[in-house]
Amino acid sequence: MKRLILLFTFFIGINAFSQTDEEVIKSIYDTSLSNGKSYEWLDHLSRQIGARLSGSLNAERAVQWTKEELENLGLDKVWLQPVMVPKWVRGTKEYAYIETSSGETIEVNICALGSSVATPALGVKAKVIEVHSLDELNTLGRENIEGKIVFFNRPMKATLMNTFNSYSGAVDQRGSGAKEASKFGAVGVIVRSMNLRLDDYPHTGNMNYGNTPLNQRIPAAAISTNHAELLSSMLKLDSTVEFYFKQNCKQYNDVLSHNVIGEITGSEFPDEYIVVGGHLDSWDLGDGSHDDGAGCTQSMDVLRLLKLSGIKPKRSIRVVLFMNEENGLRGGRKYAEIAKQKGEKHIFALESDSGGFTPRGFSFDCSNEEFNQVLNWKPLFEPYLVHSFVQGGSGADIGPLKDGNVVLAGLRPDTQRYFDHHHAANDTFEYVNKRELELGAAAMTALVYLYDKYGVK
Amino acid sequence: MKRLILLFTFFIGINAFSQTDEEVIKSIYDTSLSNGKSYEWLDHLSRQIGARLSGSLNAERAVQWTKEELENLGLDKVWLQPVMVPKWVRGTKEYAYIETSSGETIEVNICALGSSVATPALGVKAKVIEVHSLDELNTLGRENIEGKIVFFNRPMKATLMNTFNSYSGAVDQRGSGAKEASKFGAVGVIVRSMNLRLDDYPHTGNMNYGNTPLNQRIPAAAISTNHAELLSSMLKLDSTVEFYFKQNCKQYNDVLSHNVIGEITGSEFPDEYIVVGGHLDSWDLGDGSHDDGAGCTQSMDVLRLLKLSGIKPKRSIRVVLFMNEENGLRGGRKYAEIAKQKGEKHIFALESDSGGFTPRGFSFDCSNEEFNQVLNWKPLFEPYLVHSFVQGGSGADIGPLKDGNVVLAGLRPDTQRYFDHHHAANDTFEYVNKRELELGAAAMTALVYLYDKYGVK
Repeated sequence: MKRLILLFTFFIGINAFSQTDEEVIKSIYDTSLSNGKSYEWLDHLSRQIGARLSGSLNAERAVQWTKEELENLGLDKVWLQPVMVPKWVRGTKEYAYIETSSGETIEVNICALGSSVATPALGVKAKVIEVHSLDELNTLGRENIEGKIVFFNRPMKATLMNTFNSYSGAVDQRGSGAKEASKFGAVGVIVRSMNLRLDDYPHTGNMNYGNTPLNQRIPAAAISTNHAELLSSMLKLDSTVEFYFKQNCKQYNDVLSHNVIGEITGSEFPDEYIVVGGHLDSWDLGDGSHDDGAGCTQSMDVLRLLKLSGIKPKRSIRVVLFMNEENGLRGGRKYAEIAKQKGEKHIFALESDSGGFTPRGFSFDCSNEEFNQVLNWKPLFEPYLVHSFVQGGSGADIGPLKDGNVVLAGLRPDTQRYFDHHHAANDTFEYVNKRELELGAAAMTALVYLYDKYGVK
Repeated sequence: MKRLILLFTFFIGINAFSQTDEEVIKSIYDTSLSNGKSYEWLDHLSRQIGARLSGSLNAERAVQWTKEELENLGLDKVWLQPVMVPKWVRGTKEYAYIETSSGETIEVNICALGSSVATPALGVKAKVIEVHSLDELNTLGRENIEGKIVFFNRPMKATLMNTFNSYSGAVDQRGSGAKEASKFGAVGVIVRSMNLRLDDYPHTGNMNYGNTPLNQRIPAAAISTNHAELLSSMLKLDSTVEFYFKQNCKQYNDVLSHNVIGEITGSEFPDEYIVVGGHLDSWDLGDGSHDDGAGCTQSMDVLRLLKLSGIKPKRSIRVVLFMNEENGLRGGRKYAEIAKQKGEKHIFALESDSGGFTPRGFSFDCSNEEFNQVLNWKPLFEPYLVHSFVQGGSGADIGPLKDGNVVLAGLRPDTQRYFDHHHAANDTFEYVNKRELELGAAAMTALVYLYDKYGVK
């Protein structure tokens, strides 16, 4: 019944938006599709700069280049916000094989997980115990685990529509597998890649040791889904097969980096802020095109598209390219910390960090009343096949802004292809479609336009 | 207001579908995503068989193989329906270059358009006149066209959301360009590829000469969008540049081919037919994965998914793999002709021929009353992000079934990437995503299930 009332609100409360809004949004879409810059920027960021792991030279090149590009847009302010970030380095390429009881070796594709320690210099070789959950470790106990490599092999669930839910349901193995396995004396951890597809790419991503003492930390790596299947099959035939791997990744001291911020200052309410952003750092295996070069260049284009569409924002609109989402979230925390220090009133923040695919909707982290406001705008997005407005998460980098007043939102692109590429060597520019990227930038610009015009009711 | 009434219908007329339907559809989706066969079939069709132009050996291999696969499903009947089809052969690879007034030559990527005649054996070389519409030919007249190659260079419109509309708005140049240009004495036609992206692939597709006498037919080819831009730029600098091209394609006499048909005979109303299908033929440059191997293997899986979900159809469900959509539509016409001869009552036909991308909705060619019926089912599809139910076209192959009684429908996948691949050498298996394909098969199965259960009201 509640739904019915909402529908009435739409038919009766027709002044929730105006005819002009339809025209402005049409103009935004037309401009993005015929004169967008997100794709050209992404081409440079991905293919001229490349992977941008926090603390790397490339991350700093990306900071400098995006700052220059924002300056070229003629915004009211562009600046760098200093933030100390972790610096983890993969080192030379990992090497791994399965060794049968007869001594035959089969090389397999692995990559160290972010924040993992190295193996001993000559690698580690041990028998393997396959498990499917963290709970299973407790059941197996020290007698079955000590001295072994724990192989976490629970696949992402194929039957969920939103693949981010499949990810959430499996990623505990990657995040906490090593921490938990070390409690039972495991010597290493191999985790099935977070990938719904069977292929040869290992997918990295962050893990953490929690309070595990330094000398008890064990190395952790991801294995490609094809090789996870292979290892599992071999273990079924012969539980004595051994696994060898070698990685020499290293955690260094924190280093200085920056969030990149550009602003159009509001004409009526300059002290009310709207943020649109993505994260500028990426993992180091691909070029970080979908995660999250796409979100960065879309966010940059939001301010450009507003200008090109002749919109003079009432409120201050900021693009923020956050540093270090992948292995620390330091940029997101720093931005929120400074905003709080300065007493800046943020009314709306939107993040694009789910890939550059066709936009399907937005998710909103806000009150029911605030959600009703955006539901009234939904018909404005339907001509552009942006159908799905839901309450839920927003984006990791803007999360720290949450204070009970700001509306947080995330762009929700189509998710079916995302985990084919996520954190892997094939997260590269060629898998981004120009129009899909531009449609995302347009949808984001339209939503920012509406929040700027009407504020949060 | 009409919309409001419909919404009331949904809330009051809650028995338009049952709780069970939700469960059955969930089961169909789960089965498709965890145990679908469309992708495995498409792998074989694309990579073991390959391109399947009507009249080619590969088209016959595809006929035989799909027949065997349908037989393996244990359907009630599987048969081949004979149909005579045109046989056009590309011959050796085309060759083309632009020649500047100083004699410099720049090779460019072209491909003969389907049904085109060859050039003279040594090729044709002439000055070029660039035009942007068929109307412009009349304005230019014989004095500007005679003896020249007409270069049609109107791009597909970037600002439309549905790229099939961009296609419809540009494809007259390909279909009728040669026929119209020959009236003014042109010696050949070069058409900008039907592609929204700037890249190096020429895109073929059918053209026709209408009543043009045989000896007045001029050769027609598509040029890649990058080279269309190049040619246009060069013409702006120097209108005397010449264009050379050579192609030795040939139209042979019609040959015998087949539609492939499989049937589950209905348990209650065996004389009422529901058809689900795609077209088995493809162009010859890629392997026809999106156009329309995807639609074929999705349609095959509809019958398999019904069986696996334990559904015993009341009505007779047929999968039809139509031959010769691309350059003749003979298969679609033959199927409808035989159905009419036999007095078969078709109540619903669904085609998938818009690529194997994420399904966004369906379009329906039916009466308003019939459309209201399917609108009642729309909530069943929303959990699967199939949001867009519209009245419009259905599919070329099922079009001939139209008789005022049958409801015709087309699966509407996301269109943004489709014309990057359509009719080009990069319409290949690697660009099809397994989950997206399976989601399409599931959506189709769900719709067939509902029409089988409830019939057409």
